[in-house]
Amino acid sequence: MKLYKKEKYNDLGLDTKAPSSGYRALNKDGSFNVHKENVSFFEGMNIFHSLVSMSWLQFLLVLALAYFTINLIFASLYLLIGTEHLTGIYGTTKLDQFIEAFFFSAQTITTLGYGQIAPLNLAANIVAASESLLGLLLFALATGLMYGRFSKPVASIKYSSIAVIAPYKAINGFMFRVVNPKKNQLLEVEVNVNLSLKRSDSDLRDFYSLELERSKVVFFPTMWTIVHPVSSESPIYGLNQQNLMEKDAEFIVVIKAFDESFSQSVYSRSSYKANEIKWGAKFTYLAKRDDTGLSIDVGRIDDTFEIDLNQ
Amino acid sequence: MKLYKKEKYNDLGLDTKAPSSGYRALNKDGSFNVHKENVSFFEGMNIFHSLVSMSWLQFLLVLALAYFTINLIFASLYLLIGTEHLTGIYGTTKLDQFIEAFFFSAQTITTLGYGQIAPLNLAANIVAASESLLGLLLFALATGLMYGRFSKPVASIKYSSIAVIAPYKAINGFMFRVVNPKKNQLLEVEVNVNLSLKRSDSDLRDFYSLELERSKVVFFPTMWTIVHPVSSESPIYGLNQQNLMEKDAEFIVVIKAFDESFSQSVYSRSSYKANEIKWGAKFTYLAKRDDTGLSIDVGRIDDTFEIDLNQ
Amino acid sequence: MKLYKKEKYNDLGLDTKAPSSGYRALNKDGSFNVHKENVSFFEGMNIFHSLVSMSWLQFLLVLALAYFTINLIFASLYLLIGTEHLTGIYGTTKLDQFIEAFFFSAQTITTLGYGQIAPLNLAANIVAASESLLGLLLFALATGLMYGRFSKPVASIKYSSIAVIAPYKAINGFMFRVVNPKKNQLLEVEVNVNLSLKRSDSDLRDFYSLELERSKVVFFPTMWTIVHPVSSESPIYGLNQQNLMEKDAEFIVVIKAFDESFSQSVYSRSSYKANEIKWGAKFTYLAKRDDTGLSIDVGRIDDTFEIDLNQ
Amino acid sequence: MKLYKKEKYNDLGLDTKAPSSGYRALNKDGSFNVHKENVSFFEGMNIFHSLVSMSWLQFLLVLALAYFTINLIFASLYLLIGTEHLTGIYGTTKLDQFIEAFFFSAQTITTLGYGQIAPLNLAANIVAASESLLGLLLFALATGLMYGRFSKPVASIKYSSIAVIAPYKAINGFMFRVVNPKKNQLLEVEVNVNLSLKRSDSDLRDFYSLELERSKVVFFPTMWTIVHPVSSESPIYGLNQQNLMEKDAEFIVVIKAFDESFSQSVYSRSSYKANEIKWGAKFTYLAKRDDTGLSIDVGRIDDTFEIDLNQ
Repeated sequence: MKLYKKEKYNDLGLDTKAPSSGYRALNKDGSFNVHKENVSFFEGMNIFHSLVSMSWLQFLLVLALAYFTINLIFASLYLLIGTEHLTGIYGTTKLDQFIEAFFFSAQTITTLGYGQIAPLNLAANIVAASESLLGLLLFALATGLMYGRFSKPVASIKYSSIAVIAPYKAINGFMFRVVNPKKNQLLEVEVNVNLSLKRSDSDLRDFYSLELERSKVVFFPTMWTIVHPVSSESPIYGLNQQNLMEKDAEFIVVIKAFDESFSQSVYSRSSYKANEIKWGAKFTYLAKRDDTGLSIDVGRIDDTFEIDLNQ
Repeated sequence: MKLYKKEKYNDLGLDTKAPSSGYRALNKDGSFNVHKENVSFFEGMNIFHSLVSMSWLQFLLVLALAYFTINLIFASLYLLIGTEHLTGIYGTTKLDQFIEAFFFSAQTITTLGYGQIAPLNLAANIVAASESLLGLLLFALATGLMYGRFSKPVASIKYSSIAVIAPYKAINGFMFRVVNPKKNQLLEVEVNVNLSLKRSDSDLRDFYSLELERSKVVFFPTMWTIVHPVSSESPIYGLNQQNLMEKDAEFIVVIKAFDESFSQSVYSRSSYKANEIKWGAKFTYLAKRDDTGLSIDVGRIDDTFEIDLNQ
Repeated sequence: MKLYKKEKYNDLGLDTKAPSSGYRALNKDGSFNVHKENVSFFEGMNIFHSLVSMSWLQFLLVLALAYFTINLIFASLYLLIGTEHLTGIYGTTKLDQFIEAFFFSAQTITTLGYGQIAPLNLAANIVAASESLLGLLLFALATGLMYGRFSKPVASIKYSSIAVIAPYKAINGFMFRVVNPKKNQLLEVEVNVNLSLKRSDSDLRDFYSLELERSKVVFFPTMWTIVHPVSSESPIYGLNQQNLMEKDAEFIVVIKAFDESFSQSVYSRSSYKANEIKWGAKFTYLAKRDDTGLSIDVGRIDDTFEIDLNQ
Repeated sequence: MKLYKKEKYNDLGLDTKAPSSGYRALNKDGSFNVHKENVSFFEGMNIFHSLVSMSWLQFLLVLALAYFTINLIFASLYLLIGTEHLTGIYGTTKLDQFIEAFFFSAQTITTLGYGQIAPLNLAANIVAASESLLGLLLFALATGLMYGRFSKPVASIKYSSIAVIAPYKAINGFMFRVVNPKKNQLLEVEVNVNLSLKRSDSDLRDFYSLELERSKVVFFPTMWTIVHPVSSESPIYGLNQQNLMEKDAEFIVVIKAFDESFSQSVYSRSSYKANEIKWGAKFTYLAKRDDTGLSIDVGRIDDTFEIDLNQ
C-alpha cells in the first residue's frame, strides 16, 4: 500500500507560495529576491566573500581607509610612548610630532624603513616590531584577496535583453540568445529553462521545465540562440501575450559551463518576465565570414526583425 | 553457480560493529567519533591542514609565538657573534645588548631594515642575510596560509537543532530544516539521510537509506524542510518514540552542494539522535513577502507548534 | 500530434552555416576561428586572463614597463613638490634631481627604503606613504599573477602532426596518436572525435560523432593510438582521399583528462584537415622494454611506414 | 554487415604487450614503470611541477642556492661598476669589497635596505632598482610555490603492505586494507581493482576488472578491508599461489576520493604482485570502543593471523 504520491514538480528550490503579480523570483543579474532576517552577525559574516565580491573602487577605498586608520592608531601609540624615544623627530608642536609619527608608522607597516626615524627605547621598539609583523600579515591578506578577486569564477554570459516568440519549423518557438564576450573559452555549456506560472485560482505557482531544441553544446565560440519549441506539449502552447501577463510568467534560465581558463565550473542565471518577450519577432543572423574565419557582431545581440507567426 | 550473495546495505563506511546504546557515529558538527592510534608522526602530520583549520585566535597566537621565538634565536646568534660587530648598539649590559639585538632581528626578518643598526663583519652579515631570506620565506608561507584560511570551502549550512515527526499528507513524516545563512549561493544542493538502528538481539547496527520527498534542489535561497515520508516502506514505519530510543536510532545527514563563490563542491554533515526528535510538532512557515521580495526569519528556524499526528 | 522533429546532429556548438572550402573551424593549437566584434571594452576585458595567458617574455616586459612608468610618474611628483623636501638629493640640475627622485621612487615602491634619501615635508611624506602602499598592492597582484601563471591548467598533450588511414583488423581505420610529454600524470582520459563535412549541394556542413575503438583510458603513461574503425557505419566509409578533400573534411578532436598535479580537469583540442591525412601508412610501434620498465621514444611520434590498405 | 568486433578488455591504458615475468606496471608508490625518451627540453619541462613535487629539503636547498648565486652575480655587477659608487664600502682589497657588495646585494634583493651601503651613481642605482624588482618577483614566485606545495592534493592513503587470500562467507576472498592516516576527511571513496595476467602462450597480458564486495563508501573514518570474492566468475577462481606467480599476476589498485579540506578530487594508486599475497591469512579486527568513540590502531594495519581456506 502506497500512502502518499510523490509530486511531479521541478525541484528548483524556489518557494511555491511566492505571491502573485509583479513578483520576480530571479533578478536579471541572477540574484534572488530573498532576504534573510535575524542571521546572527557571526553566522552571516563572510568577510572574504564580501571583499572579493565588491567593486574595485570599493575595494581600494576599504584598503586606503584601513591603511589610514591603522597608521592613526599607531601614530597615537608612538605619541603616547613619547616621541623623544624615536630618533629623527624634529616637530616641536604635538601636531607636528603626530604627523611625523604617522609617517614613521607608514614606513614601518609597509616595511619600508627609511631609517631617518627609528625607535630608541623598549616600548617604541616593541610597538614598531609588532607593527611590522602586523603589516606583513595584512599584506599577506591583501595578496590573498587580490588573487581571490582575479581568479573568482564568473560566467560572464551576455543575454539578449529580450526574448522573442518566432516561427520555428512548422510551429513557433520561445527564443533568446546568449554569447560569451570574454576571451576565456567556455566548454560543455548546458542550459536549463524553467517556467514559473501563477495559478489563476490561487496564489500558488507551478514550475515547468521547458524542453529545448538543444540543451548542451561542447564548444561555445559563437552566439547561441536557445529555442524552446512551443509544441502541443509545451506549458505555453495556445497561450498568447495577454495570457502570459495574467499568469505572471517568469522564464528562469540557468546556464552551467566549464571555464577553461580557471578549470572551474561556472553558473550563470537570468530570467525573462512576460513583458520582456516580443511576439512575432526573429533574431537577426549575425555571423559573417571574413578572411580569418567567422566574425560575430556582439553589439547587435538584441537585433530582431518582425515576422508572422505560424498558426 | 553463485557462491556468495552480495549484501544489501548502505555503504556509508561506518563500522557495523559499533557498540550499542549512547554511541553517536557522527557528531552534531559533522566530525566522526573515531580516533586513530599509532599513526606515526610523519604520516599523521598535516601542518597546512592544522594551521588552516584552527581558529583565528589560535592562528594569530601561533604566528606571534613563532615571531617571538625566531627573534630570540637570532638575537642569541648576534650576541654570540658579538654586538661590537653591529653598528648602533649602545647597550652596555648583556641584557640591553640582547634587547637591541632582538629588535635588530625583528627589523631584519620583516625586511624593515631601518638601518640605525646594521651588520659590520662577515659573520653578522651572513646571519642577517640568512635571516632576511628566512623572513621572506616565512612570510610567503603566511601568505599561503592566509589565502588557504579564507578560501577554505565550508558549507556553513545551519540545521534545525531538533527534528520533528509531523503529519505529512495522509501519513506522517520525519522532518528537519536547513538554511544557508551566508551570502554565498549554494547550487545543486543534494541531501542524503541515512538511519542507523541497533539490532535488538546483538550489538550490530543496520544502516538504511531514507527515501525523501525531495532530495535535490537547483537553488537554495530560502529555508528547506527536508521530509522523509514515513510510508509503509520506511524502516521507522510503526515505530514510536520509545522504540527509536531502544534501537539507539541515529539519523545521519549528508548535504552536498556547489558553492558558487569558490566554484567548489562542499559537504555538510550532521545527525539527529532519537532524543533530538519532537513527536507531534510541525515547523512554523517563516517566509513573508515584503516590498523587495521574500523575507525569511532565520532566527526562528527551530520554531514549531504542536499538532496531532495521522494514525 | 508532434509538430516538430528533433534534429539528430552533434551539438558541437559550431556554426553549421560555416562556409565551404578551406575553412578551418578549429586551429591546430585548439583555438577557434571566430572573431567577436563590437564587444564593449569593459565586457571583453579580462586583464587577469590576458596577463596569465601571455608568454613569459611578454609578461616580464609588461612588468618592467609598468615599473619604469610608475617610477617616472612618482619622480615627477617628487620634483613637483620640490626635491629640497627630500634629504640626500645632491643633484644641481633638474635632470640630476629627476634621476635621484626616480631612484628614490624605486626604493620606495619596492619598500627597499635605504634611507639615504627620505621625505621631509608633509607633501613628500604623503606621496611616499601612498607609493609604498601602492607598491605592496601591485606586488600582491604580481604574486597572484605568478601563481596564476604557474598553476594554470594546461593539457599539454602532443598530437601526431598527421593522421593516417591504415589497415585495422579486416577493415581500415582512421588513426592518430597522442602522448603526454610532461611529468604530470593525466588520468581518466576521454577522447571525442567529430567530423565536419561540407554538403556537396550547399554551403551547409554536417557534423558526425565518430565511433572509436577506445574512447576512455584510466591511465595515460604511454603513447595512445586513437582509432576510428571505418566500418560500414562510418561517415567516411567508401570515401577516398579525393572525396575528403572535396568535402573539405575536418576531424575535430577533443580530449578531456584529470591532471593529478593540480587536481583539475583539463581539455585539449586539435583538428586534422583532409590534407593532413596519409593514406596507406601505419604508425611505428615505439615502446621498448629496458631494465627499469617500458621506454617510449616521444620524438618519433610521427614515424609511419607504408602499408597496403584492406579493400 | 559488421566488419569488426569491439574488443572487451579493460581500458586501463597500460600496454598489453608489456613483457612477461618480473615486470611491474605500477610501482608500490603509484608511479608508472614507463620512461619517455626524446622529449624536447621545452616540452618536458614543468618547473612548477618539479619545484612543487620535490622534498622540502631539496626545495630549501634550491632556494638557498638560487639566493647565493643571484647575490654572487649582482655583487660582481657592483664590483664592475666600481664600489666607489656605493656609500659605506670600506674594504680595501678586492675580496673585502666583493664581500661587502655581496651583502649589499642581499640587502637589496630582500628589500631589507639597511642603508649603511647605498648606490651613488646612475649605473649602481639602475642595478639596485632592477635587483629589488627582481627580488620582489622571485619572492612572488616563492610565495606561489609555497602555497602550491601546501595545497597540493595528495591522497595519502596507507595500504597494507601485503594482501591476503582469506575465507569469505562460503568461499574465499582476495583482501587488502587501507586507512587514511591524515586528519583530512576523505569522502565518496571509490576503489577499483584490476588484475593483469600474462598469457601462458605469449608475451601478451590480459587485464581484468575485479568485482568487489563494496566499491564505494560515503565516509572513510575507519580502516577499510577491500574484498574481491573469489567466486566462480573471478579470473583467479581455481588458481593457487604457484599459478599466480607463473602468470606474473599484478593487482592494480586505484582509489579515487574527494578531499574535504581542499575540495579536490584525489587519486591514489598501488599494486600487489603475486609474491605480496599471503595465502590462508586473515586481517586482525582492530577497531576498539573507548569512552569517546571508536579507536583504531593504525600501526597494526599489517596484522594477520593464519586461518584455513574454504575449499
